[in-house]
Amino acid sequence: MPPFDVPEGDPFGPHNLPYGVFSLAAGGERTVGVRLGDHVLDAGAAARALGSPYAPLLAQPTLNTLLSAGRTTWSDVRRALTAWVTVHRETIAEHFHPLSSVTLHLPFEVADYVDFYSSEHHARNVGRIFRPDAADSLTPNWKHLPIGYHGRSGTVVVSGTDVVRPSGQRKAPGDAEPVFGPSIRLDIEAEVGFVVGVPSAMGTSVGIAEFPEHVFGLCLLNDWSARDIQAWEYVPLGPFLGKSFATSVSAWITPLDALDHARVAPPQRTHALLPYLDDTGSSATAVEPGGYDLRISVAVNGHVVSEPPFSTMYWTAAQQLAQMTVNGASLRTGDLYGSGTVSGPEPGQRGSLLELTWNGRDPLELPEGKRTFLEDGDVVTLSAWAPGPGGVRVGLGEVSGRIVAG
Amino acid sequence: MPPFDVPEGDPFGPHNLPYGVFSLAAGGERTVGVRLGDHVLDAGAAARALGSPYAPLLAQPTLNTLLSAGRTTWSDVRRALTAWVTVHRETIAEHFHPLSSVTLHLPFEVADYVDFYSSEHHARNVGRIFRPDAADSLTPNWKHLPIGYHGRSGTVVVSGTDVVRPSGQRKAPGDAEPVFGPSIRLDIEAEVGFVVGVPSAMGTSVGIAEFPEHVFGLCLLNDWSARDIQAWEYVPLGPFLGKSFATSVSAWITPLDALDHARVAPPQRTHALLPYLDDTGSSATAVEPGGYDLRISVAVNGHVVSEPPFSTMYWTAAQQLAQMTVNGASLRTGDLYGSGTVSGPEPGQRGSLLELTWNGRDPLELPEGKRTFLEDGDVVTLSAWAPGPGGVRVGLGEVSGRIVAG
Repeated sequence: MPPFDVPEGDPFGPHNLPYGVFSLAAGGERTVGVRLGDHVLDAGAAARALGSPYAPLLAQPTLNTLLSAGRTTWSDVRRALTAWVTVHRETIAEHFHPLSSVTLHLPFEVADYVDFYSSEHHARNVGRIFRPDAADSLTPNWKHLPIGYHGRSGTVVVSGTDVVRPSGQRKAPGDAEPVFGPSIRLDIEAEVGFVVGVPSAMGTSVGIAEFPEHVFGLCLLNDWSARDIQAWEYVPLGPFLGKSFATSVSAWITPLDALDHARVAPPQRTHALLPYLDDTGSSATAVEPGGYDLRISVAVNGHVVSEPPFSTMYWTAAQQLAQMTVNGASLRTGDLYGSGTVSGPEPGQRGSLLELTWNGRDPLELPEGKRTFLEDGDVVTLSAWAPGPGGVRVGLGEVSGRIVAG
Repeated sequence: MPPFDVPEGDPFGPHNLPYGVFSLAAGGERTVGVRLGDHVLDAGAAARALGSPYAPLLAQPTLNTLLSAGRTTWSDVRRALTAWVTVHRETIAEHFHPLSSVTLHLPFEVADYVDFYSSEHHARNVGRIFRPDAADSLTPNWKHLPIGYHGRSGTVVVSGTDVVRPSGQRKAPGDAEPVFGPSIRLDIEAEVGFVVGVPSAMGTSVGIAEFPEHVFGLCLLNDWSARDIQAWEYVPLGPFLGKSFATSVSAWITPLDALDHARVAPPQRTHALLPYLDDTGSSATAVEPGGYDLRISVAVNGHVVSEPPFSTMYWTAAQQLAQMTVNGASLRTGDLYGSGTVSGPEPGQRGSLLELTWNGRDPLELPEGKRTFLEDGDVVTLSAWAPGPGGVRVGLGEVSGRIVAG
């Protein structure tokens, strides 16, 4: 193994250390990897080489064993890894592999997948587009609880997986009957996904202060959406086939421990919150600051079309976790929940083409032509960074997908 | 092992043979069981005793291995079991255990859980209750596609599991602000659940004629529903916490092969169907008859309050499967989908308390008092039978649950 350099200030330096799952060949044995610069460390092999007690957690085909171990172990393993990739790096040199030489896989087995709707700017844009005559662009419940719904965990795929354009029924307002065919309004939703590690018992709820005990880390998530299919199907039971064909996540899960410098206060609450959601600091259950300053970038075919700021999300991940369990619903290792589309207050900060093109009215101008919704062959890539220690950036793993014809 | 009799005409006779998972002690080793009368056969042990090649499919802690084996194997195993419990019964006598001596478990690992809304009578009742001024009690899409949504697979529990009353936000129309507390409108939904065995690839769809290749069998399902939580949360993204606290399924999965005599034509279609849903017989993709004649009974604290007829469902399970995958969503072994509340045309055939009490207006009179919605301590039991060979009934495993305070 030749030596390699991690440049000073690299967003994937030793301050970051996100986790993934890789194999040396496409069909080869999968094992947990930790990213350092443009290399991946075979974490289980390194643990064994160093005689670490964490080898059984890391020599695994998914992250689920590590996820279930809990916060204390997560922090202990991270401290150990930090030492391995700095002090002991030469000893384990043979267990680093260039990223370009490995295949990355879905890093954990997804249990339940829930998607929220927690950006006020996104929700208001959607309201203005679809209900232009409504007195309020938000539904009456929006400021009282983080609205969410369950998605299809079986179609969560790792970054790099092609997305087949879905077919389905659509019916334009003026049409007499629905028609069937490939979606003609295929969209993205730029989101952040949170990965649950520690389960909870059915019949109990998880308070917002317990967020760090249950949630291991986060990833970027693209909640691909067929707007035409969704519009016809979603009353009264919500999105179904308009979303269930694919949800892409990044190959790297960034542990919350890497994001301590990125924590920010969420926007000021405009409505009083019920105690189980109260994070204003006056409540005993408050976790502050509950937001994360993640700077997301959305690129279509390599051209940045939007830069959504995650810090503007109205509802935090801790509040979403509390909401999801307040009815006694249990958590499982591998539960994944999406933040909802991240949109900031500015036009250039919107996290969906629906908003960026204002429902197709204002096409995006790309070098390869105008875009309202996605065309076959288009590649969408979400990337992001967060403030880290000493002004160094913490890079999030990108999530990318190419649209292919059905 | 003492001998036991299965009376002539027993609904769990050798013509039925549903599958479950049991252990001899509550925390003991789980293994696949097959029900015969009031006994369960340790199927893996019997297979080994008889030198059967099916032992590796049956000596398993869940049904998932058998589920993934496919239609030909399902039929072969069923033929073998029929011989074992008839011709070879004495040889394997020691592997039968009285049902009263075993603990039954969730019979399969649930992958994704989808719930449909496919009874026209139910949908019209709900429409009349909640939208009394609407021109049509059905939404415009209802007759064009089976409406569905994803539920929480992590809270699917086996019959006999207590259901903790969920807490959450509710807001009556006249209230200024939402309040928090235990649900005061806790309801049932009497449904049939379909269990997917054979997976499908992402990006492909499964036609209605392929239903028997993918679906192994069915069970009774109670989709517990907190109507007050649901009413406040569900616009615009559908039911979430009002459903996700618990979904109960019967401990026994009835293979489709046991229900050949129960197949009936669904109600006449009032609207032309797009080809992928067309089961009228004129289409090359038609499966006829696509319905199942299941006679469901709903009992509250032992008193039968309703008898919903599954034969009246407008959308069939084959159409639901086609709908669920028409966008290219993949199937996984262990996917579960519910029919939606089964309600017939008569008042005594409604599958929810919402309908039976007409949203609380007409309480049920039970010996222990009036009921609008469920009280703590109430036990709800769904049971069902279907016509079998020679006029013998095929019993479905009951699904039962007791409400306990949160």
